[in-house]
Amino acid sequence: MTTADRGELKYEGKAKRVYATGVPGEYIVEFKDDATAFNAQKRGSWQGKGATNNAITAALYPKLEAAGIPTHFIGQLSATEQRVKAVSIVPVEIVVRNVAAGSFAKRLGLEEGTPLARPVIDYCYKSDALGDPLINTDTAVALGWASEEDLKRIRELTLKIRDFLVAFFERRGVRLIDFKLEFGKLPDGEIVLADEISPDTCRFWDLQTNEKMDKDRFRRDLGGVEDAYAEMLRRVTQPD
Amino acid sequence: MTTADRGELKYEGKAKRVYATGVPGEYIVEFKDDATAFNAQKRGSWQGKGATNNAITAALYPKLEAAGIPTHFIGQLSATEQRVKAVSIVPVEIVVRNVAAGSFAKRLGLEEGTPLARPVIDYCYKSDALGDPLINTDTAVALGWASEEDLKRIRELTLKIRDFLVAFFERRGVRLIDFKLEFGKLPDGEIVLADEISPDTCRFWDLQTNEKMDKDRFRRDLGGVEDAYAEMLRRVTQPD
Repeated sequence: MTTADRGELKYEGKAKRVYATGVPGEYIVEFKDDATAFNAQKRGSWQGKGATNNAITAALYPKLEAAGIPTHFIGQLSATEQRVKAVSIVPVEIVVRNVAAGSFAKRLGLEEGTPLARPVIDYCYKSDALGDPLINTDTAVALGWASEEDLKRIRELTLKIRDFLVAFFERRGVRLIDFKLEFGKLPDGEIVLADEISPDTCRFWDLQTNEKMDKDRFRRDLGGVEDAYAEMLRRVTQPD
Repeated sequence: MTTADRGELKYEGKAKRVYATGVPGEYIVEFKDDATAFNAQKRGSWQGKGATNNAITAALYPKLEAAGIPTHFIGQLSATEQRVKAVSIVPVEIVVRNVAAGSFAKRLGLEEGTPLARPVIDYCYKSDALGDPLINTDTAVALGWASEEDLKRIRELTLKIRDFLVAFFERRGVRLIDFKLEFGKLPDGEIVLADEISPDTCRFWDLQTNEKMDKDRFRRDLGGVEDAYAEMLRRVTQPD
Protein backbone atom coordinates (compact mmCIF):
# COMPACT_ATOMS: atom_id res chain seq x y z
CA MET A 1 0.00 0.00 0.00
CA THR A 2 1.17 3.56 -0.73
CA THR A 3 -0.10 7.10 -0.32
CA ALA A 4 -1.73 6.63 -3.73
CA ASP A 5 -4.15 4.17 -2.14
CA ARG A 6 -5.86 6.90 -0.16
CA GLY A 7 -9.57 6.89 -0.88
CA GLU A 8 -12.41 8.88 0.62
CA LEU A 9 -11.53 11.24 3.49
CA LYS A 10 -13.45 9.64 6.38
CA TYR A 11 -12.53 12.11 9.12
CA GLU A 12 -10.46 15.22 9.62
CA GLY A 13 -9.52 16.20 13.14
CA LYS A 14 -7.29 18.94 14.51
CA ALA A 15 -4.05 16.98 13.94
CA LYS A 16 -4.93 14.03 11.69
CA ARG A 17 -6.80 12.93 8.60
CA VAL A 18 -8.24 9.44 8.16
CA TYR A 19 -8.73 8.00 4.66
CA ALA A 20 -10.52 4.92 3.43
CA THR A 21 -8.44 2.61 1.21
CA GLY A 22 -9.11 -0.02 -1.42
CA VAL A 23 -8.40 -2.67 1.20
CA PRO A 24 -11.52 -3.62 3.17
CA GLY A 25 -11.14 -2.98 6.89
CA GLU A 26 -8.07 -0.80 6.45
CA TYR A 27 -7.63 2.98 6.75
CA ILE A 28 -4.68 5.34 6.26
CA VAL A 29 -4.04 7.91 8.99
CA GLU A 30 -2.12 11.04 8.01
CA PHE A 31 -0.49 13.09 10.78
CA LYS A 32 -0.67 16.84 10.09
CA ASP A 33 1.83 19.52 11.13
CA ASP A 34 -1.01 21.59 12.63
CA ALA A 35 -1.16 22.18 16.36
CA THR A 36 -4.16 23.54 18.22
CA ALA A 37 -4.84 24.20 21.90
CA PHE A 38 -7.66 25.41 24.14
CA ASN A 39 -10.31 23.88 21.91
CA ALA A 40 -8.66 25.28 18.75
CA GLN A 41 -8.70 28.89 19.99
CA LYS A 42 -4.91 28.81 19.64
CA ARG A 43 -3.49 27.52 16.38
CA GLY A 44 0.01 26.87 15.11
CA SER A 45 2.02 24.56 12.91
CA TRP A 46 5.61 23.45 12.52
CA GLN A 47 7.34 21.34 9.91
CA GLY A 48 8.04 17.83 11.06
CA LYS A 49 5.43 17.69 13.82
CA GLY A 50 3.25 15.19 11.96
CA ALA A 51 6.23 12.99 11.13
CA THR A 52 7.47 13.05 14.74
CA ASN A 53 4.08 12.07 16.20
CA ASN A 54 3.66 9.40 13.54
CA ALA A 55 7.08 7.94 14.38
CA ILE A 56 6.46 8.01 18.15
CA THR A 57 3.08 6.32 17.76
CA ALA A 58 4.52 3.78 15.31
CA ALA A 59 7.21 2.93 17.86
CA LEU A 60 4.80 2.63 20.81
CA TYR A 61 1.82 0.73 19.42
CA PRO A 62 3.70 -2.49 18.52
CA LYS A 63 5.19 -2.47 22.04
CA LEU A 64 1.69 -2.14 23.48
CA GLU A 65 0.50 -4.99 21.24
CA ALA A 66 3.39 -7.10 22.54
CA ALA A 67 2.22 -6.25 26.09
CA GLY A 68 -1.22 -7.64 25.31
CA ILE A 69 -3.07 -4.44 24.31
CA PRO A 70 -5.02 -4.74 21.06
CA THR A 71 -4.55 -1.64 18.88
CA HIS A 72 -5.70 -0.40 15.47
CA PHE A 73 -2.07 -0.07 14.28
CA ILE A 74 -0.92 -2.13 11.29
CA GLY A 75 2.29 -0.44 10.18
CA GLN A 76 3.98 2.79 9.19
CA LEU A 77 3.34 3.74 5.57
CA SER A 78 5.39 6.91 5.11
CA ALA A 79 6.96 9.65 7.22
CA THR A 80 3.53 11.10 8.04
CA GLU A 81 1.21 8.14 7.40
CA GLN A 82 0.34 4.84 8.96
CA ARG A 83 -1.93 1.94 8.08
CA VAL A 84 -4.57 1.13 10.68
CA LYS A 85 -7.54 -1.16 11.06
CA ALA A 86 -10.82 0.57 10.19
CA VAL A 87 -12.64 1.12 13.48
CA SER A 88 -15.59 3.18 14.58
CA ILE A 89 -14.27 5.53 17.23
CA VAL A 90 -16.05 5.38 20.61
CA PRO A 91 -16.97 9.04 21.18
CA VAL A 92 -15.66 8.99 24.76
CA GLU A 93 -12.10 10.23 25.25
CA ILE A 94 -10.17 8.78 28.16
CA VAL A 95 -7.82 11.02 30.12
CA VAL A 96 -5.56 9.30 32.64
CA ARG A 97 -3.96 11.46 35.32
CA ASN A 98 -1.03 10.42 37.50
CA VAL A 99 -0.19 13.96 38.63
CA ALA A 100 -2.46 17.03 38.74
CA ALA A 101 -1.80 19.35 35.79
CA GLY A 102 -3.53 21.52 33.21
CA SER A 103 -7.30 21.95 33.29
CA PHE A 104 -7.70 19.31 36.01
CA ALA A 105 -5.41 21.19 38.44
CA LYS A 106 -7.10 24.49 37.61
CA ARG A 107 -10.65 23.16 37.97
CA LEU A 108 -9.92 21.63 41.37
CA GLY A 109 -7.68 24.37 42.75
CA LEU A 110 -4.61 22.11 42.95
CA GLU A 111 -1.04 23.15 42.36
CA GLU A 112 0.29 21.72 39.10
CA GLY A 113 2.56 18.82 39.96
CA THR A 114 0.51 17.53 42.92
CA PRO A 115 0.84 13.73 42.79
CA LEU A 116 -2.42 11.77 42.89
CA ALA A 117 -2.70 8.95 45.42
CA ARG A 118 -4.03 6.76 42.62
CA PRO A 119 -4.54 7.21 38.89
CA VAL A 120 -7.65 9.17 37.94
CA ILE A 121 -9.51 8.21 34.79
CA ASP A 122 -11.59 11.05 33.38
CA TYR A 123 -14.10 10.53 30.60
CA CYS A 124 -14.89 13.26 28.06
CA TYR A 125 -17.49 13.40 25.31
CA LYS A 126 -15.57 13.63 22.02
CA SER A 127 -17.10 16.76 20.51
CA ASP A 128 -15.06 19.64 19.09
CA ALA A 129 -18.20 21.77 19.00
CA LEU A 130 -18.74 21.35 22.76
CA GLY A 131 -15.04 21.41 23.73
CA ASP A 132 -14.85 17.73 24.75
CA PRO A 133 -16.81 18.18 28.00
CA LEU A 134 -16.10 16.05 31.05
CA ILE A 135 -18.75 13.39 31.65
CA ASN A 136 -19.08 10.28 33.74
CA THR A 137 -19.75 6.81 32.42
CA ASP A 138 -23.48 6.95 33.35
CA THR A 139 -23.87 9.78 30.83
CA ALA A 140 -22.11 7.84 28.07
CA VAL A 141 -24.42 4.87 28.62
CA ALA A 142 -27.60 6.97 29.04
CA LEU A 143 -26.94 8.84 25.77
CA GLY A 144 -25.93 5.73 23.85
CA TRP A 145 -22.29 6.66 23.23
CA ALA A 146 -20.95 3.40 24.67
CA SER A 147 -22.31 0.34 26.42
CA GLU A 148 -21.54 -0.43 30.03
CA GLU A 149 -19.64 -3.51 28.83
CA ASP A 150 -17.51 -1.50 26.37
CA LEU A 151 -16.68 1.07 29.06
CA LYS A 152 -15.64 -1.68 31.46
CA ARG A 153 -13.31 -3.11 28.82
CA ILE A 154 -11.97 0.37 28.01
CA ARG A 155 -11.21 0.99 31.69
CA GLU A 156 -9.47 -2.37 32.00
CA LEU A 157 -7.31 -1.72 28.91
CA THR A 158 -6.62 1.85 30.04
CA LEU A 159 -5.20 0.70 33.39
CA LYS A 160 -2.96 -1.84 31.62
CA ILE A 161 -1.78 0.81 29.15
CA ARG A 162 -1.12 3.21 32.01
CA ASP A 163 1.06 0.72 33.88
CA PHE A 164 2.99 -0.12 30.71
CA LEU A 165 3.55 3.50 29.72
CA VAL A 166 4.54 4.76 33.19
CA ALA A 167 7.29 2.12 33.40
CA PHE A 168 8.32 2.53 29.75
CA PHE A 169 8.80 6.29 30.03
CA GLU A 170 10.42 6.10 33.46
CA ARG A 171 13.15 3.90 31.96
CA ARG A 172 13.73 6.74 29.48
CA GLY A 173 13.94 9.49 32.10
CA VAL A 174 10.41 10.76 31.53
CA ARG A 175 7.61 11.23 34.03
CA LEU A 176 4.20 10.52 32.50
CA ILE A 177 1.97 13.19 34.06
CA ASP A 178 -1.25 12.52 32.15
CA PHE A 179 -2.36 11.28 28.75
CA LYS A 180 -5.41 10.94 26.51
CA LEU A 181 -6.54 7.76 24.78
CA GLU A 182 -9.20 6.99 22.21
CA PHE A 183 -10.60 3.57 21.55
CA GLY A 184 -12.31 2.14 18.51
CA LYS A 185 -14.56 -0.79 17.79
CA LEU A 186 -13.81 -3.40 15.13
CA PRO A 187 -16.70 -4.81 13.08
CA ASP A 188 -16.71 -7.90 15.36
CA GLY A 189 -17.20 -5.67 18.42
CA GLU A 190 -13.66 -5.90 19.77
CA ILE A 191 -12.44 -2.74 21.50
CA VAL A 192 -8.93 -1.67 20.39
CA LEU A 193 -6.69 1.28 21.19
CA ALA A 194 -6.90 3.81 18.33
CA ASP A 195 -5.70 7.40 17.76
CA GLU A 196 -2.10 8.23 18.80
CA ILE A 197 0.20 8.48 21.81
CA SER A 198 2.54 11.43 21.36
CA PRO A 199 3.57 14.76 22.92
CA ASP A 200 0.26 16.08 21.54
CA THR A 201 -1.74 13.71 23.74
CA CYS A 202 0.51 13.23 26.80
CA ARG A 203 2.18 15.44 29.35
CA PHE A 204 5.84 14.38 29.63
CA TRP A 205 8.14 15.91 32.25
CA ASP A 206 11.85 15.17 32.38
CA LEU A 207 12.40 12.93 35.41
CA GLN A 208 15.42 14.92 36.61
CA THR A 209 14.58 18.53 35.75
CA ASN A 210 10.73 18.48 35.50
CA GLU A 211 11.17 20.26 32.16
CA LYS A 212 8.06 19.97 30.00
CA MET A 213 8.57 17.89 26.83
CA ASP A 214 5.11 18.06 25.28
CA LYS A 215 2.43 20.28 23.78
CA ASP A 216 2.38 22.51 26.88
CA ARG A 217 5.48 24.17 25.34
CA PHE A 218 3.18 25.28 22.50
CA ARG A 219 0.10 25.94 24.67
CA ARG A 220 2.07 28.12 27.07
CA ASP A 221 4.57 29.67 24.62
CA LEU A 222 7.55 28.15 26.45
CA GLY A 223 9.69 27.88 23.28
CA GLY A 224 11.73 24.88 22.21
CA VAL A 225 8.66 22.92 21.18
CA GLU A 226 10.28 21.29 18.12
CA ASP A 227 13.33 20.24 20.14
CA ALA A 228 11.13 18.76 22.87
CA TYR A 229 9.16 16.64 20.36
CA ALA A 230 12.41 15.49 18.69
CA GLU A 231 13.90 14.61 22.08
CA MET A 232 10.81 12.57 22.96
CA LEU A 233 11.14 10.66 19.65
CA ARG A 234 14.80 10.00 20.46
CA ARG A 235 13.94 8.67 23.92
CA VAL A 236 10.99 6.55 22.74
CA THR A 237 13.11 4.87 20.07
CA GLN A 238 16.18 4.25 22.25
CA PRO A 239 16.64 0.56 23.09
CA ASP A 240 15.32 -0.75 26.42
CA MET B 1 -34.63 21.66 72.61
CA THR B 2 -35.39 25.19 71.41
CA THR B 3 -33.76 27.89 69.33
CA ALA B 4 -32.08 29.03 72.55
CA ASP B 5 -30.01 25.83 72.47
CA ARG B 6 -28.06 27.02 69.42
CA GLY B 7 -24.35 26.96 70.16
CA GLU B 8 -21.36 27.58 67.94
CA LEU B 9 -22.07 28.27 64.24
CA LYS B 10 -20.45 25.24 62.61
CA TYR B 11 -21.15 26.08 58.99
CA GLU B 12 -22.90 28.72 56.93
CA GLY B 13 -23.84 27.91 53.37
CA LYS B 14 -25.79 29.79 50.76
CA ALA B 15 -29.20 28.79 52.12
CA LYS B 16 -28.60 27.29 55.57
CA ARG B 17 -26.74 27.69 58.85
CA VAL B 18 -25.69 24.75 61.02
CA TYR B 19 -25.24 25.22 64.78
CA ALA B 20 -23.75 23.00 67.44
CA THR B 21 -26.00 22.37 70.47
CA GLY B 22 -25.55 21.35 74.08
CA VAL B 23 -26.63 17.84 73.13
CA PRO B 24 -23.70 15.71 71.98
CA GLY B 25 -24.13 14.43 68.45
CA GLU B 26 -26.92 16.86 67.64
CA TYR B 27 -26.96 19.99 65.48
CA ILE B 28 -29.60 22.59 64.63
CA VAL B 29 -30.06 23.49 60.96
CA GLU B 30 -31.60 26.87 60.19
CA PHE B 31 -33.06 27.43 56.73
CA LYS B 32 -32.48 30.97 55.45
CA ASP B 33 -34.68 33.03 53.14
CA ASP B 34 -31.68 33.73 50.87
CA ALA B 35 -31.60 32.34 47.36
CA THR B 36 -28.53 32.24 45.16
CA ALA B 37 -27.91 30.90 41.67
CA PHE B 38 -25.06 30.50 39.19
CA ASN B 39 -22.49 30.01 41.97
CA ALA B 40 -23.87 32.99 43.94
CA GLN B 41 -23.50 35.45 41.05
CA LYS B 42 -27.26 35.96 41.29
CA ARG B 43 -28.72 36.66 44.72
CA GLY B 44 -32.20 37.13 46.05
CA SER B 45 -34.38 36.47 49.04
CA TRP B 46 -38.05 36.12 49.85
CA GLN B 47 -39.91 35.80 53.09
CA GLY B 48 -41.02 32.28 53.88
CA LYS B 49 -38.52 30.50 51.61
CA GLY B 50 -36.58 29.04 54.54
CA ALA B 51 -39.76 27.91 56.29
CA THR B 52 -41.11 26.29 53.11
CA ASN B 53 -37.90 24.34 52.42
CA ASN B 54 -37.68 23.33 56.08
CA ALA B 55 -41.27 22.05 56.00
CA ILE B 56 -40.76 20.15 52.71
CA THR B 57 -37.57 18.51 53.99
CA ALA B 58 -39.20 17.74 57.35
CA ALA B 59 -42.05 16.01 55.49
CA LEU B 60 -39.79 14.02 53.16
CA TYR B 61 -36.99 12.76 55.39
CA PRO B 62 -39.18 10.66 57.73
CA LYS B 63 -40.77 9.07 54.65
CA LEU B 64 -37.30 8.24 53.33
CA GLU B 65 -36.36 6.78 56.73
CA ALA B 66 -39.51 4.65 56.58
CA ALA B 67 -38.38 3.47 53.13
CA GLY B 68 -35.08 2.29 54.59
CA ILE B 69 -32.87 5.31 53.90
CA PRO B 70 -30.85 6.47 56.91
CA THR B 71 -30.91 10.29 57.23
CA HIS B 72 -29.54 12.92 59.59
CA PHE B 73 -33.05 14.22 60.35
CA ILE B 74 -34.31 14.07 63.94
CA GLY B 75 -37.29 16.44 63.96
CA GLN B 76 -38.59 19.89 63.16
CA LEU B 77 -37.73 22.46 65.84
CA SER B 78 -39.40 25.63 64.56
CA ALA B 79 -40.73 27.09 61.31
CA THR B 80 -37.20 27.54 59.98
CA GLU B 81 -35.19 25.06 62.08
CA GLN B 82 -34.73 21.35 62.40
CA ARG B 83 -32.76 19.06 64.69
CA VAL B 84 -30.32 16.77 62.92
CA LYS B 85 -27.63 14.29 63.83
CA ALA B 86 -24.16 15.83 63.80
CA VAL B 87 -22.40 14.46 60.72
CA SER B 88 -19.27 15.35 58.84
CA ILE B 89 -20.42 16.17 55.33
CA VAL B 90 -18.80 14.15 52.54
CA PRO B 91 -17.50 16.91 50.23
CA VAL B 92 -18.90 15.23 47.14
CA GLU B 93 -22.32 16.44 45.98
CA ILE B 94 -24.48 13.96 44.13
CA VAL B 95 -26.64 15.14 41.24
CA VAL B 96 -29.15 12.67 39.86
CA ARG B 97 -30.58 13.35 36.42
CA ASN B 98 -33.67 11.70 34.97
CA VAL B 99 -34.15 14.25 32.20
CA ALA B 100 -31.56 16.58 30.64
CA ALA B 101 -31.87 20.13 31.99
CA GLY B 102 -29.83 23.09 33.18
CA SER B 103 -26.03 22.99 33.00
CA PHE B 104 -26.02 19.31 31.98
CA ALA B 105 -28.16 19.96 28.89
CA LYS B 106 -26.11 23.03 27.98
CA ARG B 107 -22.73 21.31 28.45
CA LEU B 108 -23.73 18.36 26.26
CA GLY B 109 -25.68 20.27 23.63
CA LEU B 110 -28.98 18.57 24.51
CA GLU B 111 -32.39 20.15 24.39
CA GLU B 112 -33.78 20.71 27.88
CA GLY B 113 -36.39 18.04 28.52
CA THR B 114 -34.58 15.23 26.67
CA PRO B 115 -35.33 12.07 28.68
CA LEU B 116 -32.30 9.98 29.68
CA ALA B 117 -32.41 6.26 28.90
CA ARG B 118 -31.24 5.63 32.47
CA PRO B 119 -30.58 7.85 35.49
CA VAL B 120 -27.25 9.66 35.41
CA ILE B 121 -25.42 10.21 38.68
CA ASP B 122 -22.99 13.13 38.52
CA TYR B 123 -20.46 13.80 41.27
CA CYS B 124 -19.30 17.33 42.10
CA TYR B 125 -16.63 18.54 44.49
CA LYS B 126 -18.40 20.61 47.16
CA SER B 127 -16.50 23.89 46.94
CA ASP B 128 -18.16 27.29 46.66
CA ALA B 129 -14.79 28.81 45.76
CA LEU B 130 -14.43 26.50 42.74
CA GLY B 131 -18.12 26.47 41.77
CA ASP B 132 -18.75 22.81 42.74
CA PRO B 133 -16.86 21.36 39.75
CA LEU B 134 -17.88 18.08 38.16
CA ILE B 135 -15.57 15.20 39.06
CA ASN B 136 -15.64 11.46 38.83
CA THR B 137 -15.32 9.05 41.73
CA ASP B 138 -11.63 8.30 40.97
CA THR B 139 -10.85 11.94 41.73
CA ALA B 140 -12.72 11.88 45.04
CA VAL B 141 -10.77 8.80 46.13
CA ALA B 142 -7.39 10.03 44.81
CA LEU B 143 -7.75 13.34 46.67
CA GLY B 144 -9.04 11.75 49.88
CA TRP B 145 -12.53 13.26 49.81
CA ALA B 146 -14.28 9.89 50.16
CA SER B 147 -13.30 6.24 50.23
CA GLU B 148 -14.25 3.86 47.46
CA GLU B 149 -16.45 2.02 49.99
CA ASP B 150 -18.26 5.22 51.04
CA LEU B 151 -18.88 6.15 47.41
CA LYS B 152 -20.29 2.72 46.68
CA ARG B 153 -22.69 3.08 49.63
CA ILE B 154 -23.63 6.60 48.54
CA ARG B 155 -24.41 5.39 45.03
CA GLU B 156 -26.51 2.53 46.38
CA LEU B 157 -28.50 4.87 48.68
CA THR B 158 -28.82 7.44 45.88
CA LEU B 159 -30.46 4.95 43.53
CA LYS B 160 -32.92 3.90 46.28
CA ILE B 161 -33.72 7.54 47.06
CA ARG B 162 -34.20 8.23 43.36
CA ASP B 163 -36.68 5.41 42.93
CA PHE B 164 -38.60 6.49 46.03
CA LEU B 165 -38.73 10.16 45.05
CA VAL B 166 -39.69 9.60 41.39
CA ALA B 167 -42.71 7.53 42.46
CA PHE B 168 -43.57 9.84 45.39
CA PHE B 169 -43.64 12.98 43.24
CA GLU B 170 -45.39 11.28 40.34
CA ARG B 171 -48.29 10.44 42.64
CA ARG B 172 -48.47 14.19 43.35
CA GLY B 173 -48.48 15.24 39.70
CA VAL B 174 -44.83 16.23 39.65
CA ARG B 175 -42.06 15.06 37.32
CA LEU B 176 -38.71 14.86 39.10
CA ILE B 177 -36.25 16.11 36.48
CA ASP B 178 -33.06 16.14 38.55
CA PHE B 179 -31.97 16.66 42.15
CA LYS B 180 -28.92 17.16 44.34
CA LEU B 181 -28.10 15.16 47.46
CA GLU B 182 -25.45 15.51 50.14
CA PHE B 183 -24.41 12.74 52.46
CA GLY B 184 -22.77 12.86 55.87
CA LYS B 185 -20.84 10.46 58.02
CA LEU B 186 -21.78 9.63 61.60
CA PRO B 187 -18.99 9.13 64.15
CA ASP B 188 -19.40 5.34 63.74
CA GLY B 189 -18.77 5.68 59.99
CA GLU B 190 -22.35 5.18 58.85
CA ILE B 191 -23.29 7.15 55.74
CA VAL B 192 -26.61 9.02 56.06
CA LEU B 193 -28.53 11.39 53.82
CA ALA B 194 -27.96 14.98 55.03
CA ASP B 195 -28.75 18.48 53.69
CA GLU B 196 -32.25 19.05 52.27
CA ILE B 197 -34.61 18.02 49.50
CA SER B 198 -36.59 21.04 48.32
CA PRO B 199 -37.32 23.21 45.28
CA ASP B 200 -33.83 24.68 45.90
CA THR B 201 -32.17 21.32 45.24
CA CYS B 202 -34.55 19.64 42.77
CA ARG B 203 -36.06 20.44 39.41
CA PHE B 204 -39.81 19.78 39.60
CA TRP B 205 -42.01 20.05 36.50
CA ASP B 206 -45.77 19.75 36.65
CA LEU B 207 -46.67 16.37 35.15
CA GLN B 208 -49.51 17.81 33.04
CA THR B 209 -48.23 21.23 31.99
CA ASN B 210 -44.41 20.90 32.32
CA GLU B 211 -44.55 24.15 34.31
CA LYS B 212 -41.42 24.63 36.41
CA MET B 213 -42.05 24.51 40.16
CA ASP B 214 -38.54 25.04 41.52
CA LYS B 215 -35.58 27.41 41.78
CA ASP B 216 -35.40 27.76 37.99
CA ARG B 217 -38.25 30.30 38.41
CA PHE B 218 -35.75 32.41 40.38
CA ARG B 219 -32.68 31.56 38.24
CA ARG B 220 -34.48 32.45 35.01
CA ASP B 221 -36.73 35.26 36.30
CA LEU B 222 -39.91 33.38 35.39
CA GLY B 223 -41.96 34.97 38.19
CA GLY B 224 -44.29 33.17 40.60
CA VAL B 225 -41.43 31.66 42.56
CA GLU B 226 -43.12 31.97 45.97
CA ASP B 227 -46.32 30.40 44.67
CA ALA B 228 -44.38 27.52 43.12
CA TYR B 229 -42.58 26.73 46.40
CA ALA B 230 -45.88 26.95 48.32
CA GLU B 231 -47.56 24.66 45.81
CA MET B 232 -44.73 22.13 46.15
CA LEU B 233 -45.17 22.17 49.95
CA ARG B 234 -48.90 21.62 49.49
CA ARG B 235 -48.32 18.64 47.18
CA VAL B 236 -45.57 17.10 49.35
CA THR B 237 -47.79 17.22 52.44
CA GLN B 238 -50.95 15.92 50.79
CA PRO B 239 -51.84 12.39 51.89
CA ASP B 240 -50.77 9.45 49.72
